[in-house]
Amino acid sequence: MRVPLVLLGCGRVGQALLEEAASLDLQFLGVLDSTGGVVDGGGIPQGRLSQLLSRKREGVALGELGVPGEGATSALLALLRERRGLLVDVTAADTRPFLFSALEAGWGVVLANKLPLVGPWEDFRRLSSVGYEATVGAGIPLITTLKALLGSGDEVHLIQGGLSGTLGFLLAEVERGEAFSQAVRRAMARGYTEPHPAEDLSGADLARKGLILARTLGLPLELEEVELEPLASPAGRGLPVEGFLQGLRAQDAELRRRLEGAKRRGLTLRYVVEVSSAGVRAGLREVDRKSPLARAQGVENVVVINTRRFKGHPLVLAGPGAGPASTCAGLLLDIFRLARTLGR
Amino acid sequence: MRVPLVLLGCGRVGQALLEEAASLDLQFLGVLDSTGGVVDGGGIPQGRLSQLLSRKREGVALGELGVPGEGATSALLALLRERRGLLVDVTAADTRPFLFSALEAGWGVVLANKLPLVGPWEDFRRLSSVGYEATVGAGIPLITTLKALLGSGDEVHLIQGGLSGTLGFLLAEVERGEAFSQAVRRAMARGYTEPHPAEDLSGADLARKGLILARTLGLPLELEEVELEPLASPAGRGLPVEGFLQGLRAQDAELRRRLEGAKRRGLTLRYVVEVSSAGVRAGLREVDRKSPLARAQGVENVVVINTRRFKGHPLVLAGPGAGPASTCAGLLLDIFRLARTLGR
Repeated sequence: MRVPLVLLGCGRVGQALLEEAASLDLQFLGVLDSTGGVVDGGGIPQGRLSQLLSRKREGVALGELGVPGEGATSALLALLRERRGLLVDVTAADTRPFLFSALEAGWGVVLANKLPLVGPWEDFRRLSSVGYEATVGAGIPLITTLKALLGSGDEVHLIQGGLSGTLGFLLAEVERGEAFSQAVRRAMARGYTEPHPAEDLSGADLARKGLILARTLGLPLELEEVELEPLASPAGRGLPVEGFLQGLRAQDAELRRRLEGAKRRGLTLRYVVEVSSAGVRAGLREVDRKSPLARAQGVENVVVINTRRFKGHPLVLAGPGAGPASTCAGLLLDIFRLARTLGR
Repeated sequence: MRVPLVLLGCGRVGQALLEEAASLDLQFLGVLDSTGGVVDGGGIPQGRLSQLLSRKREGVALGELGVPGEGATSALLALLRERRGLLVDVTAADTRPFLFSALEAGWGVVLANKLPLVGPWEDFRRLSSVGYEATVGAGIPLITTLKALLGSGDEVHLIQGGLSGTLGFLLAEVERGEAFSQAVRRAMARGYTEPHPAEDLSGADLARKGLILARTLGLPLELEEVELEPLASPAGRGLPVEGFLQGLRAQDAELRRRLEGAKRRGLTLRYVVEVSSAGVRAGLREVDRKSPLARAQGVENVVVINTRRFKGHPLVLAGPGAGPASTCAGLLLDIFRLARTLGR
C-alpha cells in the first residue's frame, strides 16, 4: 500500500520523516515549509526528495527550491481538491484553516503540531478524527492507549505525566545536589533545552500537552483553565539568555528548601502534569522516590494512567518523549493507521 | 452498540467479565464451563446472568444450572451457525476445534487462553485474526502496541519482559536478603503463586508467553524451541507441596551465590523473557539495578521494547500483569476492537 501524503513543515521532524520515505513506500505529493515548497500530484520522485532533503539541511528554504509563497499554497489547496491522502503537519504554526480544508476534502490529518489542538474546544471537536499521537510523549503510544481504554468502556480517573524530559533531568540533577541554575546550564550544554531555556521553564508546552490529554478524555477545557506553576516567569523569555540564567540563581535556595522538605517526608520533587475530571494542573509535586514518575532516566517521559479497571495498579508507559526520531515514530503510528481508512 | 458474545470458561476471569455485562451492554448469548452451560440466541437475560454468576461463585457447575455436557456443546455449535458475535475463551483447555469453527462461521474470537496459540505455527496462523491481548501481561496493552509498531513499518529488535509478577516478587525478596525457599513460602502466603508453586517456578507459562510474543513478531517458532531455564524442576509438580518446598532449600545457596556475583558487577538478578530474531529465551539474567526490569514494584509486569526507531531509548510498558481485573481489561480491549469489525 503506497501512502500518499503532503508534509507541512520541514524542520528536524519533517526531515526525519522524509528519510523514512524510501524504506516505507510513502508517496510525497507535497513538501512545504513557511517559504513555499514543491507540490506534485503524481508524487515527488525519490531523487528529487533526497535532493530537497539535503539542500534543506544545508539551510536552503523550500521556497527557493520549489515554488515560493502563495504559489505553493495555491497548488496545495488545488491538490487537496483533486487527490486523497494524508496531510502531515509538523509545523509550529496555527494551521487550522488548512486542516479544516483538508478534512472537508476527505483527507486524513496527522499532527506533531500542538497548536491546532489547543484553540477553542469547538475547533478541537472539528479535529476529532485527526491523528495526534506525536503531540504528547512523541512516539510513546499514549493517545493510542488512552483511546483504546476509553473505547473498551474503561474510565480514566487520573493521568500523571512526567512529560518534559528537560524538567525531569533538571529535578534529578537538583536531587543529586546540583544548584537549580547550574542544572539549567548543564541541560543547555547537553542540548536538552530550547534555544532559550525560559521556554522550557515556563511550562507552557506542558500546559498544552495536559490540555490535549484532557480533551482526549472528553473534557471540554480551554487552555486558560490549565493551572500552571512555572519554574521561571514567562517574562524571562524577553531577557538575553545569560542574564536570564544569572537571574535563576535567586531561585536556587527556594527549590533546595522545597526538595529538602520533600525528602524529610521520604519523597522527592518532580514536575508533574495531572489530568483528571477536576481539570489540568502542571507544577512541582512531591512524589514517592520509588514511583515511576521519580524513576525516569535522563530525559525519558513517564505517564501513569489510573482507570476504573487499573485502579491501585496503574498502567505505566515510558520512553523517549522528545526528539525527531521518536516524534517521527509517533507520526508513523498515525500515518499507517489512518492510511488503512483512506480507501473507505 | 450491543456486543453479542459467548463466554467459554467461567473461572475468576470469566466471572469478572460477567460482572461487567450490565454496565457495558454486553449481550451474552452463552456461558459455558467444562460441565455444560446456558445458550440462548436471544441473549441471556440480566437477571439470569446474575443468578448464574452467584451460583457459580458458590461452587455450582454450569452443567447443573443449565444444559449439561454434550447438549450445551451442540447448542453452542448451532448458535455459531445461526448468529454472529464474539467467542471469548477464558478456559485453560485446548479449544482449537471450537475456535476454528467460530472463525469459519464469521465469528470474532478473543482469548485469555494461551493454549490455542502455542500449538503448531500453522494453527497460530489460522488464528491470526483473533484477539489475544489478555494472554501476555493481562491488561497491559502489549500486543496492541506491538501490532501498532509493526503496522507502522517499525521493526522490533528485542523484547525483554519481566512477565511473571510471582518470579519478580521472589527475586526482589532474595535481593532484600531473604532465602529463596522462604521467599517462595511468602509468595504462597500472599496468594501470588499457583496452588502448587512448582508450576510458577517451572517457567512453563513464561515459555508460552515468550512464544506468543515471538509469533506476534512473525517468527515461526515452536514451543520446543524456547530456551527455558526453570527455577525448579518441573518434576516437582509431582511432589506434595510441603515436600517440594523443603527440597527448594537446596537451591538457596546457589541463588544467593549468583545474586552476589551480579551485585559485585553492580547488577541484580531478574527472571527475564527475551524475544528477538535469535529466538526466545527465558531465565535468570543479570540486569542493571536502575533498569525498568529491576524496578518493577511488587507483582508488576514490565516490558522493554527495542525497535529500529526506539533504539537505545526503548519503549517501556508496565502494569498489573495478572489477576482477574487486569485480564478482564485486556479481554475488553479486544472485545470492543473486534466488535467494531463485526458488522463489516
